[in-house]
Amino acid sequence: MPFIVDIHTHVYPQSYLGMLRARKTVPYIHDPSTPDAPPRLIILSSDDDPSIPLDRRGRPVDSSYSDINAKLEFMRRHGINVSVISLANPWLDFLEPDQARTWAERINDDLDVMCANVNKESKEKLFAFGALPLSAPSADIVVGEVERLKTLPHLRGVIMGTSGLGSGLDDEKLDPIWNALQNTDTLLFLHPHYGLPDEAFGGADTINRYGHVLPLALGFPLETTIAVTRMLLGGVFDRFPMLKILLAHSGGTLPFLAGRIESCIQHERRFVGNGGDLPGPQRSVWDVLNTNIYLDAVVYGTAGLKAAVAASGKDRLLFGTDHPFFPPLDCKEKEVWPSVATNYEAIQDAFDADANDIAAVLGGNAARILKIN
Amino acid sequence: MPFIVDIHTHVYPQSYLGMLRARKTVPYIHDPSTPDAPPRLIILSSDDDPSIPLDRRGRPVDSSYSDINAKLEFMRRHGINVSVISLANPWLDFLEPDQARTWAERINDDLDVMCANVNKESKEKLFAFGALPLSAPSADIVVGEVERLKTLPHLRGVIMGTSGLGSGLDDEKLDPIWNALQNTDTLLFLHPHYGLPDEAFGGADTINRYGHVLPLALGFPLETTIAVTRMLLGGVFDRFPMLKILLAHSGGTLPFLAGRIESCIQHERRFVGNGGDLPGPQRSVWDVLNTNIYLDAVVYGTAGLKAAVAASGKDRLLFGTDHPFFPPLDCKEKEVWPSVATNYEAIQDAFDADANDIAAVLGGNAARILKIN
Repeated sequence: MPFIVDIHTHVYPQSYLGMLRARKTVPYIHDPSTPDAPPRLIILSSDDDPSIPLDRRGRPVDSSYSDINAKLEFMRRHGINVSVISLANPWLDFLEPDQARTWAERINDDLDVMCANVNKESKEKLFAFGALPLSAPSADIVVGEVERLKTLPHLRGVIMGTSGLGSGLDDEKLDPIWNALQNTDTLLFLHPHYGLPDEAFGGADTINRYGHVLPLALGFPLETTIAVTRMLLGGVFDRFPMLKILLAHSGGTLPFLAGRIESCIQHERRFVGNGGDLPGPQRSVWDVLNTNIYLDAVVYGTAGLKAAVAASGKDRLLFGTDHPFFPPLDCKEKEVWPSVATNYEAIQDAFDADANDIAAVLGGNAARILKIN
Repeated sequence: MPFIVDIHTHVYPQSYLGMLRARKTVPYIHDPSTPDAPPRLIILSSDDDPSIPLDRRGRPVDSSYSDINAKLEFMRRHGINVSVISLANPWLDFLEPDQARTWAERINDDLDVMCANVNKESKEKLFAFGALPLSAPSADIVVGEVERLKTLPHLRGVIMGTSGLGSGLDDEKLDPIWNALQNTDTLLFLHPHYGLPDEAFGGADTINRYGHVLPLALGFPLETTIAVTRMLLGGVFDRFPMLKILLAHSGGTLPFLAGRIESCIQHERRFVGNGGDLPGPQRSVWDVLNTNIYLDAVVYGTAGLKAAVAASGKDRLLFGTDHPFFPPLDCKEKEVWPSVATNYEAIQDAFDADANDIAAVLGGNAARILKIN
């Protein structure tokens, strides 16, 4: 049996759920009036559809969202030895500035304790990506938390969305944070949450016609692709050449579009190298993909996985599940989740059943990169 | 030397350029006051930036946009035997309803004559994809043109954008047109033009900061992906299982995202198959990719091409150039265009220099599918 590490697996600590319960705007938790009905979690603005009664809005929150025993049961069921848990979206992005630092420290301490408790008693092991207080009044507070995380023994990086300080990831105000991540050799797990404007999909009516498919299947990966392309175009990887970024969902669509992005940069008349007046990136997309970028293998198909391997290399691809999201709709005890099975099968297929390559993607790469043993 | 067919190559007939010259809103052509300065073509709303003087707005239109001799010179320079020319975006989408039919017939007749004249005298051969009068007052007029195109000897399909009749490609009012395309066995070349809303990229200031890169490198392929996913979700491929659609830029990002799209459909609680109240598609993404979809090989990299092959199969992938777009910025006589060289190299790489596979993608597939010989 190969050693399996799940680097894309979320948790909402009880303290975080309590905070969401006290809120009435997205993100929030609503407790239905019907006895025994599970609480509803409304995390996407597309979930908060006023035409749907509150008691049925969003998604049911079962124990798998916060109970670490549910995580351990999921790990055993799927042969996962180590999970690197992260707070799920939208993290702490929405907090009032004066609340951000306290909550970041509290959540990250909770995660570290959760890992410590499990690792003492269980054969399965946990590590964590921390959350950042991005809405704090100054970037120094974020830098302070990046540095503090190095003192927590089970933290192995940080998770972040694409809004940064509110203006995207090419905002130069983020430079102190990139600098701190680079200097502390901290891996950043970049994860989508905000999707695309409704009009990109033809408006809210079109979106609702297909449930959550358009925002989840397309909005999420396109958001990630745009965010990391803006980082590239804004010169973040030129200024911070040692940044390490793990991209959710195999990079959104970055591996597929890397060639087109590079071609458009090379053909942009307004970039300095081409005689223009705009700076433009100094390093190629391919160089960044092979130096700074890691990809999870959460892409649900051989086609996507082959592009990911060709773009970043098989030593930079890491297995993940996205648990507790995408549970089976008709959940049977002890059944393997189809969403996970699809990713396992894609890994088998993409590497023609080569045992060494498969073992690297399932766990070897993560163990090496995240110093897990 | 392999037989090479370019299926993604655009032309603006003189009649079309004349029509654009008479316009003052996008799309339009502006003739600078400076003598000898080339006319400027403003086709994207992002090109029409009022902060840029009209004389420098958009892109220069040289003879390669309309002069068929420039196309033939480009073909010889790149070893291309056959070009299947198509009107470039935004086609006839913007016409007043009462103008649509006349212009469609005129443009398509022009294209057919252009092909006939070249094929009589040149070793290089031309065929064409026709344009559709989508803004016409009734779908019957569009159906009539689809049928009329079968009587023009050099027409091999039609090209269409993603707006359809103005409400996207999942609009049921398009059914008579899908029906006509299916019944006449007409290939539809689906091509982007409208991109994404500015806010998807962080607003107009962010877009302008990077020239045309964000709308061209990301907006275009994401638009195609959204359009074809809406067709799938809206059941177009269920109702018209014999439709043949060639997707520009290797499907936008469809091959990469196909797995995630299929997984999101399988996990959508609101679809009938999963106990919900919404119809949802009956056929899988993979089935549609292998039955209805063809992909061009205009993806500028091995990573994207491998995903395309894995998704649709190597017998459904067709070489293209996107000429006259992406010309070398420093154009030397007789030089191979870097944009074309990148695509040639990606095809060599993706098939490990297998001569049969490469010949199929470069021309064999197109010859078989489009009945070109």
